[in-house]
Amino acid sequence: MGKSEPHRYDPHTFQPLSFHDALPRFRDGTDTPRAYLERCIETIVAREPVVKAFAHLNEDGARAAADASTARWKGGQPLSAIDGMPVAIKDLLETKDMPTEQGCEAYRGNFPKRDNAAVWALRQAGAVVFGKTVSAELGGTHPGPTTNPWDPARTPGGSSSGSAAVIGARMVPAALGTQVGGSVIRPAAYCGTLALKPTQGGLHRGERQTTSMSTTGVHAGSIEDLWQVAIEIACRAGGDPGRPGLFGPLSTPADVKPGRLIVLETEGWAELDSPSRSAFETLLERVQSAGVSLLRRKDHPWIEALEQAIGKARAICGAITGWENRWYQRSLVDQNPTGVSERAKATLARAEAMSVDDYRAALMERSAAQQRHLAIAPLADAVITLSCPGPAPLWTGDVPGQPRVPRPTGDFVFNAPSSMLFAPALTMPLMSVGGLPVGVQLVGQQHEDARITALARWVMTAIAPVVAR
Amino acid sequence: MGKSEPHRYDPHTFQPLSFHDALPRFRDGTDTPRAYLERCIETIVAREPVVKAFAHLNEDGARAAADASTARWKGGQPLSAIDGMPVAIKDLLETKDMPTEQGCEAYRGNFPKRDNAAVWALRQAGAVVFGKTVSAELGGTHPGPTTNPWDPARTPGGSSSGSAAVIGARMVPAALGTQVGGSVIRPAAYCGTLALKPTQGGLHRGERQTTSMSTTGVHAGSIEDLWQVAIEIACRAGGDPGRPGLFGPLSTPADVKPGRLIVLETEGWAELDSPSRSAFETLLERVQSAGVSLLRRKDHPWIEALEQAIGKARAICGAITGWENRWYQRSLVDQNPTGVSERAKATLARAEAMSVDDYRAALMERSAAQQRHLAIAPLADAVITLSCPGPAPLWTGDVPGQPRVPRPTGDFVFNAPSSMLFAPALTMPLMSVGGLPVGVQLVGQQHEDARITALARWVMTAIAPVVAR
Repeated sequence: MGKSEPHRYDPHTFQPLSFHDALPRFRDGTDTPRAYLERCIETIVAREPVVKAFAHLNEDGARAAADASTARWKGGQPLSAIDGMPVAIKDLLETKDMPTEQGCEAYRGNFPKRDNAAVWALRQAGAVVFGKTVSAELGGTHPGPTTNPWDPARTPGGSSSGSAAVIGARMVPAALGTQVGGSVIRPAAYCGTLALKPTQGGLHRGERQTTSMSTTGVHAGSIEDLWQVAIEIACRAGGDPGRPGLFGPLSTPADVKPGRLIVLETEGWAELDSPSRSAFETLLERVQSAGVSLLRRKDHPWIEALEQAIGKARAICGAITGWENRWYQRSLVDQNPTGVSERAKATLARAEAMSVDDYRAALMERSAAQQRHLAIAPLADAVITLSCPGPAPLWTGDVPGQPRVPRPTGDFVFNAPSSMLFAPALTMPLMSVGGLPVGVQLVGQQHEDARITALARWVMTAIAPVVAR
Repeated sequence: MGKSEPHRYDPHTFQPLSFHDALPRFRDGTDTPRAYLERCIETIVAREPVVKAFAHLNEDGARAAADASTARWKGGQPLSAIDGMPVAIKDLLETKDMPTEQGCEAYRGNFPKRDNAAVWALRQAGAVVFGKTVSAELGGTHPGPTTNPWDPARTPGGSSSGSAAVIGARMVPAALGTQVGGSVIRPAAYCGTLALKPTQGGLHRGERQTTSMSTTGVHAGSIEDLWQVAIEIACRAGGDPGRPGLFGPLSTPADVKPGRLIVLETEGWAELDSPSRSAFETLLERVQSAGVSLLRRKDHPWIEALEQAIGKARAICGAITGWENRWYQRSLVDQNPTGVSERAKATLARAEAMSVDDYRAALMERSAAQQRHLAIAPLADAVITLSCPGPAPLWTGDVPGQPRVPRPTGDFVFNAPSSMLFAPALTMPLMSVGGLPVGVQLVGQQHEDARITALARWVMTAIAPVVAR
């Protein structure tokens, strides 16, 4: 197979990297973090020319950190259960040893030489901060060069494009992403990997506090690595200012079987392709056969009320985030008119046409939806829904002379709800449609991050993935 | 009188600048914003050598903006009721035409060339952004060079030292400040001026979102200018991300006589000097004589409960803000070890000794106090209390070989409560003690900014200020 051709994704056989599984070998000396890192680098050498997931690599720094970790494991004194874990960082988050260019020409060469709080926490826990992953420009919709690890003609999703792709390509076991609308869950769903978008404010965003619903999230190949990265950050740097931060045990919660799950259609149901919808219905049948009751919008008026409240989630999320970003983006464009994409400028223009009252109205709709989400808490253990509206779309660039593709990194229609609800969401690689990954997510109430992790663990153990043509 | 000697402060005779009063003359052409600006510059030339309120001045830019405003007034098309108003900006807030050095050696020369959202809104409204005012280092306790306009041997308060001093010295009619613990209300109280610390998140903080209880506030010489500046910002840039922003009418609310006020002692009562306490009791007698009922902690168990909940407000505020600032301050110190004061480093060391659970505990105490504050809403129209524990303390610098003075810009004991309650606070120049200003504040429920402004307007009209030896 030529390296640029699609790999067919099969969730039964695909084995992402796990760091957790390597820990016993670090303990008994048959493997080391340095050797683990070198294997990651080998994969990167093989796949990166096509996947293009990294904005920057710091191999020397990573090797030095891996050697220090190796010494700690040899001495029997690792700093944490992620000591030595190579972790890639979305290029929106500042790192003291690499530039932070945000996928934006106007930030070319930007190098603040300081660590975002979550990055600081990872280093405190001994993690090997390995590289910066490509972000869609400014965390928005204008894509970077990254391709989908299962088909280079398709988008990896965005805006955490590189953070999802590095897991899907088995380059590293974990990466940090950020989500405002759907920037963690959707790319993970397109790349066949796990990701956790915590409760709003669950992981400290550091200096990136200027939007009211952006959340730092974790991409990983295994549920153990997913949780461990999140909790190691939370127990050192906590959550956002004013928020209590992610709650939960210091190691991955044991699996819990749900009694009931609510199936949310969201605004995305009508836009779903038929094979993906069938695959999801098949998956739901398997969940039901395993003894889990399912509730849908027709089964309870409170579920119907929530569906209605999130029925325009994209527009609400877009209005809120556009308004919140407009001042810094206006300054950026004024200072560097050619350094920001036309796609981003069009978003800015829409935001600048808003009034304070438009913004307040969107906040009120968000708040009302959160109340309706809280109301369904007693009805079931969690929500289950798709993580993306079908497989990753084809994307090879805008065509000169044609209108701009509106969402080249895919549609956030299944992600806007959990973002606006401030709810934790965990996407699981449970379906393959036409040889490409399609994720399924669990969504909990605020602060139920550990609970949905435990439920997800059960789902991934008990339910066979669906493979559809 | 030599220019370095104290001026005795008398609230009966002191006339701060008013911009509002000049508007009819702009309309009829007998005065212009440019002429107004020139009068401000004359005062600055006379007083600045001793007061040292400005970190930067942009006289050329101000003159150009004042000329443009003059043309708009002549054309009968001012942009707003603050078109042409010279406004000074605390040097923590970014301005595209002046550096932002935050009173910190490590930020010397920092010049991001962009406007904070509130500064952007002021310019949109036609205001003349005139200069940057001295902030205590990083908005903390380490003072800059500014002296109290009533006595150069005393502190102007902080951290909005320059923004209060420029009003007290009649240099400009209004200035922006910021408050985390007591940084707007206290310096205004020490300088004999008005200030509004809005509801948390009432005025958009722009990029400065990394603490959960910092608020942009307004310093002004008149109640009309105070409100107008606040509302002109709010109707253009709104509040912080996720918050609805300051509510209220587009011009200063008419005066409203309160029926009942709650007198809060706070943690500060025990530390109050005897002349200031007597002066405040005299003032309260005048309020009562005017027909306003007063309630105190002994009069209702809910008031007592609130007093207890704010009984350690300083410690709670200090813990929360210290934790929230620790990552950026650690990076700053790591990058520039000699560029940050020993006083700030000591604060950082305390924050770095905290755990996530310590922070969560402080958040819980803050939240519980907010609940108790909400409970007293039905009991009275607002809270009345002192704005500072007596006149501004003497301050001429740390003495080598002696322990550092813990709070050289004065004690925030009367300010920590409204900060942690997220409550709007408005300080009024109603007392002179020993020839120095001592402020009195009204504190409302969240989002009652317009209400306390209306109540303050009544108090300032109906109650004669108190002059005590």
